[in-house]
Amino acid sequence: VRAHLGEALELGIPSLSHRSAAYEEIYRDTATALGELLGVPGSFRVFFVGSASEAMERIIQNGVDRTCLHLVGGAFAARFHDTAMALGKEARRLEVAPGRGFDLDRVAVPDDTELLCITQNETSTGVEVPMSDIGRLRATAPPETLIVLDVVSSVPVVDIDFASVDGILFSVQKGLGLPAGLGIMAVNERMLRRAAAVEARGHYTGGLHSFASLRARQERWQNPATPNVLFIWLLGRVCRDMLARGVATLRLETREKAGALYDFFSGTRGFAPFVRDVRIRSRTVVTADCERPAGELIDALAREGLVVAPGYGERRSTQIRVANFPAHTPEDVTRLTGTLARCGGQ
Amino acid sequence: VRAHLGEALELGIPSLSHRSAAYEEIYRDTATALGELLGVPGSFRVFFVGSASEAMERIIQNGVDRTCLHLVGGAFAARFHDTAMALGKEARRLEVAPGRGFDLDRVAVPDDTELLCITQNETSTGVEVPMSDIGRLRATAPPETLIVLDVVSSVPVVDIDFASVDGILFSVQKGLGLPAGLGIMAVNERMLRRAAAVEARGHYTGGLHSFASLRARQERWQNPATPNVLFIWLLGRVCRDMLARGVATLRLETREKAGALYDFFSGTRGFAPFVRDVRIRSRTVVTADCERPAGELIDALAREGLVVAPGYGERRSTQIRVANFPAHTPEDVTRLTGTLARCGGQ
Repeated sequence: VRAHLGEALELGIPSLSHRSAAYEEIYRDTATALGELLGVPGSFRVFFVGSASEAMERIIQNGVDRTCLHLVGGAFAARFHDTAMALGKEARRLEVAPGRGFDLDRVAVPDDTELLCITQNETSTGVEVPMSDIGRLRATAPPETLIVLDVVSSVPVVDIDFASVDGILFSVQKGLGLPAGLGIMAVNERMLRRAAAVEARGHYTGGLHSFASLRARQERWQNPATPNVLFIWLLGRVCRDMLARGVATLRLETREKAGALYDFFSGTRGFAPFVRDVRIRSRTVVTADCERPAGELIDALAREGLVVAPGYGERRSTQIRVANFPAHTPEDVTRLTGTLARCGGQ
Repeated sequence: VRAHLGEALELGIPSLSHRSAAYEEIYRDTATALGELLGVPGSFRVFFVGSASEAMERIIQNGVDRTCLHLVGGAFAARFHDTAMALGKEARRLEVAPGRGFDLDRVAVPDDTELLCITQNETSTGVEVPMSDIGRLRATAPPETLIVLDVVSSVPVVDIDFASVDGILFSVQKGLGLPAGLGIMAVNERMLRRAAAVEARGHYTGGLHSFASLRARQERWQNPATPNVLFIWLLGRVCRDMLARGVATLRLETREKAGALYDFFSGTRGFAPFVRDVRIRSRTVVTADCERPAGELIDALAREGLVVAPGYGERRSTQIRVANFPAHTPEDVTRLTGTLARCGGQ
C-alpha cells in the first residue's frame, strides 16, 4: 500500500476528477480486479459507498419492504440488526451465544422473510459461518428470501458461493489492508429488482446512494456522489497484487497460519481457543481465552512490535483476538506464538 | 498534501486503530485546527461522515420533522432539495435563474419552516450568497427556523458568520485540497436539540450517523462507525499549514486572484463574467461565458497543464468555470489568463 500510495501521487490520482474518463477506467479496472479476486460473477454489480456501516444501511433500505431475519452471534451482527430496527423494519433476530454456531437444523426461515442477513465472519467473536451452511440455508429458505453476507473481516480469504447469495458487503481496512474509508457492495439482479419494488412502495432507499441511483451511474462506471477515487484506485492495485500472488496460495497460507495459531492456543497452558467447534473457527480472526489479563499480553506483544486486539466488550480482559490477514506472514505468526509462549502463562 | 501523505506513512497513520487514544488525539486536533481556520465557535461540534452528499442526507434527517425551505439557484442546491424530497419532507423551493441572486426583500420564510437550506457558494454557477444576506435572513426568518449552509466550494475562503447559522456542511476535495472521501458537518446545540425532537417523533435520523449517535461518540473524540482516519489526519495537517500561512492572507490572496480573473473576463473580447451582479460573484468558482466552444478552450489550457471545468449541464459548451482555491497561486492565474488571451477570441 505504501508503494502504491507513492505511485498514486506520481500519477496525480488524488486530484483526478471523478467525472473524467480516467476515473471511469479506474472504477472499471478495480471492479474487474476485485471480481477476479473474489470470484464475483458478471451478473453482480460492484458499488462503492463510504463505509461498511453505510453499506448495511443501504442494503436494508433497498432490500427490505417489511421483514428481515438476522443471524446474530456477536456485536457486528447485532449492529446489522440494529440498523434494520432503526429503519423501522420488522427485523427478527436468531441469536446464539458468542462463540457458538447456528444450529441450522433448527433454523426455519419464516415464509415472509424478505432478506436474510448473515455476518459470515463475526469479528467480535471469531466465529465463521461456513459457506456450505449458507448453501443449505439457500436451499431451505423460501425462494423469495434474498441472502446478504457481511464479509468485512473475511475477504479476500473466504471463497464466497455467489450462487447462494444475492449481495455481499465489506470494507477495505481488514483483509485487503487499505486505510479505512471505503465501503463496498456487490449485488445481483434479484437484489436490484427488490430495490425497485421497495422504492415503488414509497420507501426512501438512500437518495443518491439508492441501488437505483448507484446502478444508473455504474452502467457508465460512474458514481452519483463524489467517490473516494484514491482508495478505489489503491484497491485495484492491491487486488492485482493479490491476484499475482495467487488466490489459492493466499487462501492456503491463511489457513496454515490459522492452523498454527489454533494449534498453539490449544496446546499451550494459559490459553484455549474461544470457539470450541473446529468447523466454525474463523480463519481470519483467531480468538483465544487467556489466563493472564489480556491487557498484559497485549502490552508484552506491543513491546515486540506485534499488535493484537483484546476480546470484544465484556470479554475485553479475558481474551485476545489475532487478525490473520494476507498481509501477515508466517514469520509474524511464529513471532507472535513465540512471544505468547514466553509470557502467556506467567 | 503529497509531503503529508509521505509523513502519514512514516507515522503508520493508515493502519492506526480508530479506537486508539492516538486516533482520539487526531480527531481532537483536526477539529481544533479546522475550528481555528473557519472560526467555528466552541459551541459547535464537528462530525465526520463519508461525503458532502451524506452530510446533506443526515442534516435533513436530523433537522427536519416536516418542512424545509431551499434557496435554489443551481444544480447543487437542487441536489440538497432533491435529498429532502426523497426523504419525504415537505421541501419548498425558492428558485432563481442560474447566475442570478436571491431577492432577499421578496424572500418571506414561511412561519412553519423548520430548516432553511442555503447553498452558500453554488459550484454549478459561481454565485455566492453574501454572508451579510444570511445575517439578514437570520434576522427576518421565524425564530424557530434553523439555517444550514452548504459551503462545499467556499471553505476555507468564506468567513462564516456562525451567529447566523446552525450548521454547515462541506467536503475536503475543493478549497482544502485533499483527495475526495470525507464529508464534514459542524452543528450547534440548537441543531442537536432539533435532532432529538425529530427522533422523538419517530423519524429515522441516520442510525450510526444520526446526530445523537455522532454526538455521543464525539464527546470522547470517537466515531460510531470506522472513520477515514488517514484523511482526518491529513485534514488536520492541511488546516495547520493554512493557519501558518494566515487566514487573512489566504482570503486576501483569493480575493485578489478572483479580482484578476473577473477583470480579465470583463475586459477581454470573447469572454464575459456569467454572474453580472458583482456583489454575488463567487470568489472561489469564477464562471465566464465564452464565444469559442468551451471544449476548445479547455483543451488549449490542458496543453499548458492548466485544468478548468466546463459550464454545468446545458451551459457545458458555452462557459468555463475556474476554480480559485488557496492552492492556486497568482502565477497560475496569470498563466491562465495569458493562455486564454491568446486563444480565447479565435
